[in-house]
Amino acid sequence: MNTYKVSILTVGDEILIGQTVNTNAAKIGQIVSSLGAEIVASSVCPDNKEAMLVELERLENISDSIIITGGLGPTHDDITKSVLTEYYDDETVVNEEELIRIKEYFKIRKREFKDINIELARIPNKCLPIRNNVGTAPGMHFPDSSSKKNVDVFSLPGVPREMMAMMEEYVASYIESQLDNSYDVQAFRTIETSGRGESDLADLIGSVDSFLKSNTSLAYLPSTRGVRLRLGAIGKFEETEKELDELEKLIESKVGQFIVGKGDADKKSTIKELLDKQKLSVSVAESCTSGLLGAYLTEISGSSSYFKGGILSYSNEVKKSLLSVKEYTLEQYGAVSEETAREMADGCRVLLGTDISISITGIAGSGGGTDEKPVGLVWVALSDSKGIIAKRFNFGRSRETNRELAVSAATNMLLLRLKENYEGKE
Amino acid sequence: MNTYKVSILTVGDEILIGQTVNTNAAKIGQIVSSLGAEIVASSVCPDNKEAMLVELERLENISDSIIITGGLGPTHDDITKSVLTEYYDDETVVNEEELIRIKEYFKIRKREFKDINIELARIPNKCLPIRNNVGTAPGMHFPDSSSKKNVDVFSLPGVPREMMAMMEEYVASYIESQLDNSYDVQAFRTIETSGRGESDLADLIGSVDSFLKSNTSLAYLPSTRGVRLRLGAIGKFEETEKELDELEKLIESKVGQFIVGKGDADKKSTIKELLDKQKLSVSVAESCTSGLLGAYLTEISGSSSYFKGGILSYSNEVKKSLLSVKEYTLEQYGAVSEETAREMADGCRVLLGTDISISITGIAGSGGGTDEKPVGLVWVALSDSKGIIAKRFNFGRSRETNRELAVSAATNMLLLRLKENYEGKE
Repeated sequence: MNTYKVSILTVGDEILIGQTVNTNAAKIGQIVSSLGAEIVASSVCPDNKEAMLVELERLENISDSIIITGGLGPTHDDITKSVLTEYYDDETVVNEEELIRIKEYFKIRKREFKDINIELARIPNKCLPIRNNVGTAPGMHFPDSSSKKNVDVFSLPGVPREMMAMMEEYVASYIESQLDNSYDVQAFRTIETSGRGESDLADLIGSVDSFLKSNTSLAYLPSTRGVRLRLGAIGKFEETEKELDELEKLIESKVGQFIVGKGDADKKSTIKELLDKQKLSVSVAESCTSGLLGAYLTEISGSSSYFKGGILSYSNEVKKSLLSVKEYTLEQYGAVSEETAREMADGCRVLLGTDISISITGIAGSGGGTDEKPVGLVWVALSDSKGIIAKRFNFGRSRETNRELAVSAATNMLLLRLKENYEGKE
Repeated sequence: MNTYKVSILTVGDEILIGQTVNTNAAKIGQIVSSLGAEIVASSVCPDNKEAMLVELERLENISDSIIITGGLGPTHDDITKSVLTEYYDDETVVNEEELIRIKEYFKIRKREFKDINIELARIPNKCLPIRNNVGTAPGMHFPDSSSKKNVDVFSLPGVPREMMAMMEEYVASYIESQLDNSYDVQAFRTIETSGRGESDLADLIGSVDSFLKSNTSLAYLPSTRGVRLRLGAIGKFEETEKELDELEKLIESKVGQFIVGKGDADKKSTIKELLDKQKLSVSVAESCTSGLLGAYLTEISGSSSYFKGGILSYSNEVKKSLLSVKEYTLEQYGAVSEETAREMADGCRVLLGTDISISITGIAGSGGGTDEKPVGLVWVALSDSKGIIAKRFNFGRSRETNRELAVSAATNMLLLRLKENYEGKE
């Protein structure tokens, strides 16, 4: 298949040693693949000239475009500009237009423009500047004509907001313009499932040999929030749409009851849709997650139509005074118990006057566990007009993962209840 | 410098197209670099045999060890095991010990063990199995003796929890055992700053030529939460400690007043330390962030000593009924205003009886902005025994970033107040 091939090169020791998670590569990957181009490689190189030169040469051999991020800042450890100047056997000049823009940027923000800041407008001769509409240093586009191997090279800042603005305003439209009819596109669709593991789903879907073609694919992506199925197709645009439609129908016929979202409509959006359709409001009462569930339910714009608020009842005092959890319950069963979870959910529903309230109480760790109630024990409860349901979970040892899994369990419980309502079941 | 060199290879289209952020590579990077080994490359390859074989060969040429994650699952799209079998010109056998363990794993969890699950225990002859204590499929260790280039190759699952368990229980101690006295170690320290940008800090610290040596380094890492400074040194262990001590002292003498945390002690831990020292309790009143601040303040174990709880006042009703924000204030100034932020913080402090309360109210976006109050406008307020302070912020267009920056602004405000208290200033 003749796809348009893109490589991503992230520069920076902080990514290599795990001080910073490489969200830039993920965001670039999302944008580039949404255009239909194929990402053939993504790699990270240290802040080191030799390593970067070797990587550039390697990626030029397998790509139509290389997108570089990082190393464009004003300090000595930012080497991308000088390495690219050497790579292209070029020299740098101060770009007058960029200089005016950068001076204006300082002026608007009432920041003093020092002589050293002139360097920000200095770029190699062979590149086109990519305007930075949210910061100072311009990005650089070395057109395919300046490369021996006919490859376009884009160099973007590492600051996510500046990188994203340049991706959206410049790089994406450039790549789109290259994707004429001579190229095949690579298209993906995602189906989110919940309630069954990877092997079980694979069993239900059956052998892929019977339905996958040479240009279609199916991948299983397990995570703490459920298994995502990724459908892929390569070919001319209309062809890929047709293939994906067929594949999606097939998957739906095999595992339809476990599907909680499709395409961009993930669990969050499905919850929003079902709440809006049923005109229901929600509130949360959180102990060990202390806000993560509330934050999750409001990640999408427009969530104020159903989300009213919540109580972070980290201490027992708050559980009693605001959520009306009984002193007796806390003494007899403890803060992490079915009884407390139920009273928290119910108390929150009454206090905030919402149709549904969800509570989480657990031992996130690393401290606080006992033999009887180990780290990872979490109770989730949901109160609505039909009554209260509660469920016990035993997660693992990591505080971060336990809190994440608790949110996932709570939203699964909410989603299931909303689906039951919708299907008219009790 | 003769360091022990490690490469990370992540397998999976989902990482390339940005469907999954590569947190595995970051976690491996953290563990490996904490041992003193040098990470020379990190790359992502597609679920494709040819691409993976090429990457393996490339990384073998520059590494002492390669750590691979992903592609070990039970479905057809998991190709790592078969590619490694081919790479080592090997064949697979069912490992009886692993088979017994896997059967036991199914039994304990009351899951049916099907014939197909025998395949989980099938591994190449030349590798040692790495026990999976939290899942089914074993990892694989191809010792350096089975490789032409004398390189150790580790293949770990992509599920973060399983990967981490094997890193901690097996790979880390193996690498540690290799790091004898013949190797130099690479050591890092991090200093967290807040309140000054990258260029300003660099100005204050001055030219690195005057203090950096051939084996020491300094990097500036700007993020929405402030600029981190990373100090590095390579050499024998005692030598690196001495170099880092000196470098740290120098940095401290230049930009001491902007330092908010050191080493592992980041902003979170500094806040915890100052609150514990001053025996102060905290609560939160959150609108647009809806729990993110509460979640942030409880990310570390032991936070219950100071964090009591909070109110997610997403709707105006909750602002009025629980936080005692006046009807008049909401009508006259609106929910996103200095007045509302102040009343939220104060109302929360009274309601939850804490020493300090912090409030956030803003327009996170994407909807809800007006000319007068655009998306990105956020008010943060803090109430304590000295009074109430409030500050206005204008962030950007992205809902996610706005919520993150609001939390950062609120914790900066808290930290500053705690430092003032501690230094006895008013």
